[in-house]
Amino acid sequence: MTTTTRPNLSIDADRLWSTLDRSAEIGVGKAGGLRRVALSDDDKIMRDQFVEWCEGAGCQVTVDAAGSIFARRAGRDDDLPPVVVGSHLDTQAAGGRFDGILGVLAGLEILRTLEDNDITTRRPIEVVNWTNEEGARFAPPMAASCVFAGLQTVEWLHDLHDDDGIRFGDELKRIGYLGTAPVGGRELDSYFELHIEQDDLMEKEEKSVGVVTGGYMSHALTCVFHGECAHTGPTEMKKRRNAMIGASYFLAAVNDIGWDYEPIGRTSASRMQIWPNKFGILPEYAEVTVDMRHVERDVTNEMVARTREALEEAAKKANVDCEITAEWTFGDEVFDPVCTQLVRDAATARGVSQMDIKSIAGHDAYYISRIAPTALVFSPCIDGITHNEAEDVPREATNDAVNVFFDAVVARADR
Amino acid sequence: MTTTTRPNLSIDADRLWSTLDRSAEIGVGKAGGLRRVALSDDDKIMRDQFVEWCEGAGCQVTVDAAGSIFARRAGRDDDLPPVVVGSHLDTQAAGGRFDGILGVLAGLEILRTLEDNDITTRRPIEVVNWTNEEGARFAPPMAASCVFAGLQTVEWLHDLHDDDGIRFGDELKRIGYLGTAPVGGRELDSYFELHIEQDDLMEKEEKSVGVVTGGYMSHALTCVFHGECAHTGPTEMKKRRNAMIGASYFLAAVNDIGWDYEPIGRTSASRMQIWPNKFGILPEYAEVTVDMRHVERDVTNEMVARTREALEEAAKKANVDCEITAEWTFGDEVFDPVCTQLVRDAATARGVSQMDIKSIAGHDAYYISRIAPTALVFSPCIDGITHNEAEDVPREATNDAVNVFFDAVVARADR
Repeated sequence: MTTTTRPNLSIDADRLWSTLDRSAEIGVGKAGGLRRVALSDDDKIMRDQFVEWCEGAGCQVTVDAAGSIFARRAGRDDDLPPVVVGSHLDTQAAGGRFDGILGVLAGLEILRTLEDNDITTRRPIEVVNWTNEEGARFAPPMAASCVFAGLQTVEWLHDLHDDDGIRFGDELKRIGYLGTAPVGGRELDSYFELHIEQDDLMEKEEKSVGVVTGGYMSHALTCVFHGECAHTGPTEMKKRRNAMIGASYFLAAVNDIGWDYEPIGRTSASRMQIWPNKFGILPEYAEVTVDMRHVERDVTNEMVARTREALEEAAKKANVDCEITAEWTFGDEVFDPVCTQLVRDAATARGVSQMDIKSIAGHDAYYISRIAPTALVFSPCIDGITHNEAEDVPREATNDAVNVFFDAVVARADR
Repeated sequence: MTTTTRPNLSIDADRLWSTLDRSAEIGVGKAGGLRRVALSDDDKIMRDQFVEWCEGAGCQVTVDAAGSIFARRAGRDDDLPPVVVGSHLDTQAAGGRFDGILGVLAGLEILRTLEDNDITTRRPIEVVNWTNEEGARFAPPMAASCVFAGLQTVEWLHDLHDDDGIRFGDELKRIGYLGTAPVGGRELDSYFELHIEQDDLMEKEEKSVGVVTGGYMSHALTCVFHGECAHTGPTEMKKRRNAMIGASYFLAAVNDIGWDYEPIGRTSASRMQIWPNKFGILPEYAEVTVDMRHVERDVTNEMVARTREALEEAAKKANVDCEITAEWTFGDEVFDPVCTQLVRDAATARGVSQMDIKSIAGHDAYYISRIAPTALVFSPCIDGITHNEAEDVPREATNDAVNVFFDAVVARADR
C-alpha cells in the first residue's frame, strides 16, 4: 500500500451550489421547498439530471434492480472494492432542499474535483443515490439500502405499494430506473455519507463538522386497532367499538410518555390509517406506527414497555381489540472507528471546527454499516428545521464540511 | 273535501321482499351487506332498476338536477300538491340492506298496490329516492334533500368532491342522473318517510311501529388543527407541533365527555383527515368533525361547551393552533302532528303495536320538515346494528310497519 500526498485541493463551492440550486428547481413544493417523493415524475427528472452530471464528469453509471444509481470513477487498482459515497435525492411530501441531496451532490462534486485535477485514486469511488430513503410514498424508509445490505429481498421491495395501490416495481419501470445490476452482494471497501444534522446542536456549538459516533436507540411499533362499524348517532357509548378512538387514546398516551423523557427522549407518530374514515359510520380499523427514541438503550426499552401498557389501556377504554403487527429497532449501530477518524483528521488538518455527535434520525448509512466500514458525517442545519420546506443550511460551514468530507473520502480511496 | 273509504288493502309482502332481495344484490360489500355509495356504478345500477320498477307500476319518472328520482302516480285532483314518500338507496361504505332502502321500496310497494287495485287517490303520490343521504362518499350527508329544502344551492351540491377529488356534478352526469327538473321550489302536500330505527328500543319494547315525535338535539363541530411539518426523530418534544397529536388529545377528551352523559348522551367522531400523513414527518394539518347528541337541548349545549374547552386544551397540549371551521345543529325539528296522528291511527286500526320515539340519527325527513308537513316512521332493527353490513330487520314486524305506513300515506293522499 502506498500513501499518495495530494496537493491541497478544495471543491468548487460555486459549482456545488449551482447543482444544489438546480436540484431545488425539480419538484418544488407548495411552500417553496421540495416535494420530490420517490419514483414520481420529478424524481425521474432529478435522476436524469444526476446521471447527465455524472457522465459529464467521466463516470460510468449503473442502475441496480432497486433503482439505486451508482456513478463510478475508476481507481488505479480498479479491481479493489470501491469507496462508496452517497445519500438520497428523494424528499418528503413537504421536504427540504438539502436532506439527502447534499450528500449525493457533494459526492458528485468529489468526482468532478478529481476529474478537473486529473487525479486517479487507488481505489475506485462510486457515488450512489439510494432509492426511496424517505419512505414518504412507499413505506418503509431506507428501502433500497435495506435490500442492498441483504436485509430484504428485491421482490419485497418491488411489491411495496403506495397509498393509491401503485406498486413500487411498476413505478420504477415506468420512470425508466428498473436497472439490471444486482442489488448488493458485492464487497465495498467503505461507505461515507454526508448529511445535514436535522437538529441544532452543531449550530449552537458553532461546529461545521459532526462526526457521528452512533445513533439513538429507536424502537418502532405498528399497532392496529380492530373495532366495529356502527352508526355515529343511535349507537350508545357502551356499544361503541370505534377503532379511531382507540388509536386517539393511544397516541395521546404515547405523546405523554415522550414528555416524561424530554429533552433527550422523544416519542413520535405521524400517520394514521382509518377505515372507512367517513362521516356517519364508526370506523372498524385504525393503524398507527409509533416510535420511541433515547440515546440510552435501557431508557428506550423502558419507554417501549410503557408504550405497550398504554396500548392495552387505550384499547380497553375504546372497547376495541389491538395487536402489534410489526416491530423493529434501529439507530444504535456503531460506525467504523477508522473511517470516522479519517473525518476527524481531515477536519483538524483543515482547521475546521468539529464535534462528535449522535444521530437521532434514520439514514441509509445505518444499513450499509452492517456490510461495510461506514462513516456518517453531519453538516449544520439552520434552527434544526427539517422535513419542512423551510429547511436551510449555512453556506460557509457547509462548504467547510464538504471539503473535510472530500479529504476523508480521498484519503480512504488512496489507502 | 271528501273522504274515501278504501277496501282493507295490504301490500304484497312477497313482492316487497323480492325487491329488497334484488337491491341486496347490487353493490355487495366485503361482509355480505352493501357498499353502494352515492354516484358509484352500483348506485347507477340500483337507480336504473328502481326506475324500471316505477315505470312498470305506471308511474311517470322525473329526475331533478340533484339526481333525486321522483316516481309520480297521478291523483284525481292532479293539480293538488303531491304527497311525497321516500328515503334513499345509497349506503355507507360498509352499510346494510335496509337503511334508507326500505323506505324507498316501501314507497314503490304503495304505488304498485294502488296500481294493482286500480285505485287513484285524490292527491298525486310521488315516491322519491334522495341522492347522497349517507354522505359516505360526498360529505355532507342528506345533501340533495338539503338543496330541495332550499338550504343550499344546486351549485354547492355539484361542487362537492369525494376524497379522490372527483366532483359530485361530474359523477352525477357520468352515471346519467343529472336531471333537468328544478330541485325543490314547489309545494308538497306532505312528506312521509319510513326508516329502520337503527337502535334496539323498539325491539326491546316489542313494537312494530315507531312514531317519531322529534329528534335528539345534535350539534356538530368541524375542528382543524394547524401544526408544522418536522422530522419525527431529531425534533425535540418541546419543538413539536404535531397536528395529529392535537386531534388525538381532542378525540380522547370528546369520547370521555360522551361517557359522562351516557346512556342518553353520546359523542361521535368517525373521520380524521391528516396531511401529509406519511412516515417520518410530523403532520401539519389534521381535521376532525365531532358531534354531541342528547335528547334535551340544554344538555347538548352543555356537552358542546365542554367540547369547546377540550378543543383549546388539546391544542395547547400539542402546541398547535386550532379553529372551528364549520358548525351546525340538527335533529330537534318537530314533525307534523296531523301526519304523525295518521300513522298512530293506522296502527291502532290494524292492531299493530306502536310507540312514540325520538330519532337520534339524521334523516332526509329533517330537512323536508322545514318545507312540508312531515311524518317520520320507524320499523324495528335487529339488535340495533346499523351502518354495518350485518344490519337486519324482523320480517313480520317490518311487514306490519309497511302496511301501517301504506294506510297513513293513502289516508293523507285522499284527504
